[in-house]
Amino acid sequence: MKFILAPDSFKESMSSKEACDAMERGIKKIIPEAECIKVPMADGGEGTVEALIGATNGTFHKVNVIAPLGNKVEAVFGILGNKKTAVIEMASASGIQLVKREERNPLITTTFGTGQLIKAALDLGVKHIVVGIGGSATNDGGAGMIQALGGKLLDRKGEEISFGGGALGNLDSIDISELDLRLKDTVIEVACDVTNPLVGETGASAVFGPQKGATEEMVKELDNNLLHFSRIIKETLGKDVAYIEGSGAAGGLGAALLSFLNAELKRGIDLIINHTELKEKIKGADFVFTGEGAIDNQTIYGKTPMGVAKVAKQQGVKTIAFAGKVGEGVDNLYAIGITSIFSIMQGVSNLDNALKDGKENLELAVENVVRLMNI
Amino acid sequence: MKFILAPDSFKESMSSKEACDAMERGIKKIIPEAECIKVPMADGGEGTVEALIGATNGTFHKVNVIAPLGNKVEAVFGILGNKKTAVIEMASASGIQLVKREERNPLITTTFGTGQLIKAALDLGVKHIVVGIGGSATNDGGAGMIQALGGKLLDRKGEEISFGGGALGNLDSIDISELDLRLKDTVIEVACDVTNPLVGETGASAVFGPQKGATEEMVKELDNNLLHFSRIIKETLGKDVAYIEGSGAAGGLGAALLSFLNAELKRGIDLIINHTELKEKIKGADFVFTGEGAIDNQTIYGKTPMGVAKVAKQQGVKTIAFAGKVGEGVDNLYAIGITSIFSIMQGVSNLDNALKDGKENLELAVENVVRLMNI
Repeated sequence: MKFILAPDSFKESMSSKEACDAMERGIKKIIPEAECIKVPMADGGEGTVEALIGATNGTFHKVNVIAPLGNKVEAVFGILGNKKTAVIEMASASGIQLVKREERNPLITTTFGTGQLIKAALDLGVKHIVVGIGGSATNDGGAGMIQALGGKLLDRKGEEISFGGGALGNLDSIDISELDLRLKDTVIEVACDVTNPLVGETGASAVFGPQKGATEEMVKELDNNLLHFSRIIKETLGKDVAYIEGSGAAGGLGAALLSFLNAELKRGIDLIINHTELKEKIKGADFVFTGEGAIDNQTIYGKTPMGVAKVAKQQGVKTIAFAGKVGEGVDNLYAIGITSIFSIMQGVSNLDNALKDGKENLELAVENVVRLMNI
Repeated sequence: MKFILAPDSFKESMSSKEACDAMERGIKKIIPEAECIKVPMADGGEGTVEALIGATNGTFHKVNVIAPLGNKVEAVFGILGNKKTAVIEMASASGIQLVKREERNPLITTTFGTGQLIKAALDLGVKHIVVGIGGSATNDGGAGMIQALGGKLLDRKGEEISFGGGALGNLDSIDISELDLRLKDTVIEVACDVTNPLVGETGASAVFGPQKGATEEMVKELDNNLLHFSRIIKETLGKDVAYIEGSGAAGGLGAALLSFLNAELKRGIDLIINHTELKEKIKGADFVFTGEGAIDNQTIYGKTPMGVAKVAKQQGVKTIAFAGKVGEGVDNLYAIGITSIFSIMQGVSNLDNALKDGKENLELAVENVVRLMNI
């Protein structure tokens, strides 16, 4: 029997790679000779680098970059097994987890570190970069990233503006003459499930600003500044990104990726499925096992178990899903190719213990499902 | 597909009959034409009457009897679908739940009501009585039961002794001349998983007395009195039950059942399996579903899922087990015929909610198992 193990992480309990290992233990306890192909998954958010490196046998690379508040931080990115593709999580350099709650201020936080990550990847000779953009601490429209890649954001006096969404109000012109030339020959794909535009009522500042520390007044200023930024981008590059779907992702980083870097925004899970070559791996398998911390009425909207099941269904392979929590409203998942959904919980438990016991519980749930399959 | 549904109750969450119904709903959601034979189970303890009545389409009967402390209580027993067999739970007439915690005193609690239940069953013309004896409030060696059935327990003056394990110290002789004659033609089977003898260090008083309200001193008195009782039983009937396995069950009720009523003590689950005709029902089925509130390292010692699985295995039918809690040390259950064990929990939950959501969770767990079987 050949099993494809393609779970997402079970957040705060185990990484997708650890989930693969637990599943494998459960299977091999019952069918020692089973072939288990481990394809740790992610949906473009946290864990994307680890999953793609794990699934393709790639390598991790560390680099010192500028954190959102200007201090230094060691960030991590990955080079896939093919050695031609890099994978970056913007959160590693510019994530909200890098800023203490009381210091969160999107007027001054910058995406400069994300630009440095891209530069470090280019330095390794890649021609393809996958960028995960969840969890940003920033609202600078990607201005910092452009600066790190050689773009000059100048005020009326021709001096570089400072970091953050607040300083964008002083922007007068953009000089792209020294923008990293290698970007022209580089395909950049962005894992982006956010459809918000750069500005307006559903824009980056209004919707995501508050959770990054913006007051009501700051939201107004940030929104105005991003609109101003988009006008100067249009003057410079001839592209209007103010109201494009996804341009508001990651505090407007989406806008800079779309305009300066010609990036394509794609659904996270589709990107991961593509770069892990999941479809090819599933061919000829007997079963696909997937899973995530929670499977609920949101799963159908692009979460890993949904993406995996769809690919498996195309190949005529059945998918079994496992979750810590199985919520309501999951019936639509059966139609798209999930045969059964099992909670891994083994009894009454509080959250702390459930997270702590996740690996054992997943192994046990998988074991019992395989016992049933193995009749 | 033909399914045999043979769960025990999920204590404090659902009766075995309700568990059958939940299982049926889960199955029929996926296979509407499935044949579901519902055989609610018990292991001789609480729920035995309800299970046997449910499984055989029998009838309930109410009767007013004397409660452990001498007051009146309405007790329930059952007549099986064959109309020839009665089923009684001693706890219904003489159970600890009938006595407030502060009033518990095994010196005075009596099994008289249990004798009345037996009498009421005989009045309905049965020739066979199954007695479940868990949960007693008594330590009277079954003296009260014998009194209710016509036996005379006399002191030196030839007067009836009073109720309870304390009064047995005054017993001088037993007159069985007016013992209910119908008992001679009646087969009495006792569901008894307890192996303790009537007296001694592992006897009824020492082991079970304290949980019925006995102090250390009372335990000594009760143990002496039961030994005294056993000597007079020997004088009267020629049977020595002092150290027989199971004679200490239910505060020594086992001893009286064995000696005066020629009862056979049997393992609870075996009795239930026999009287529900589970073996015959399983013949030709595709799957057996069983379950209980908890499946753990005690299950192998005569709990319902173990008994059901063994019978199914003899018939070459696979058993799937469901539980609220799947504990450690259950691996030995796979060897005796349980294919898989699934917890019905669907996520993190406290006990109250787990009990409240039991039926829905069981239905959902069964549904997903059947989805997998139905591939």
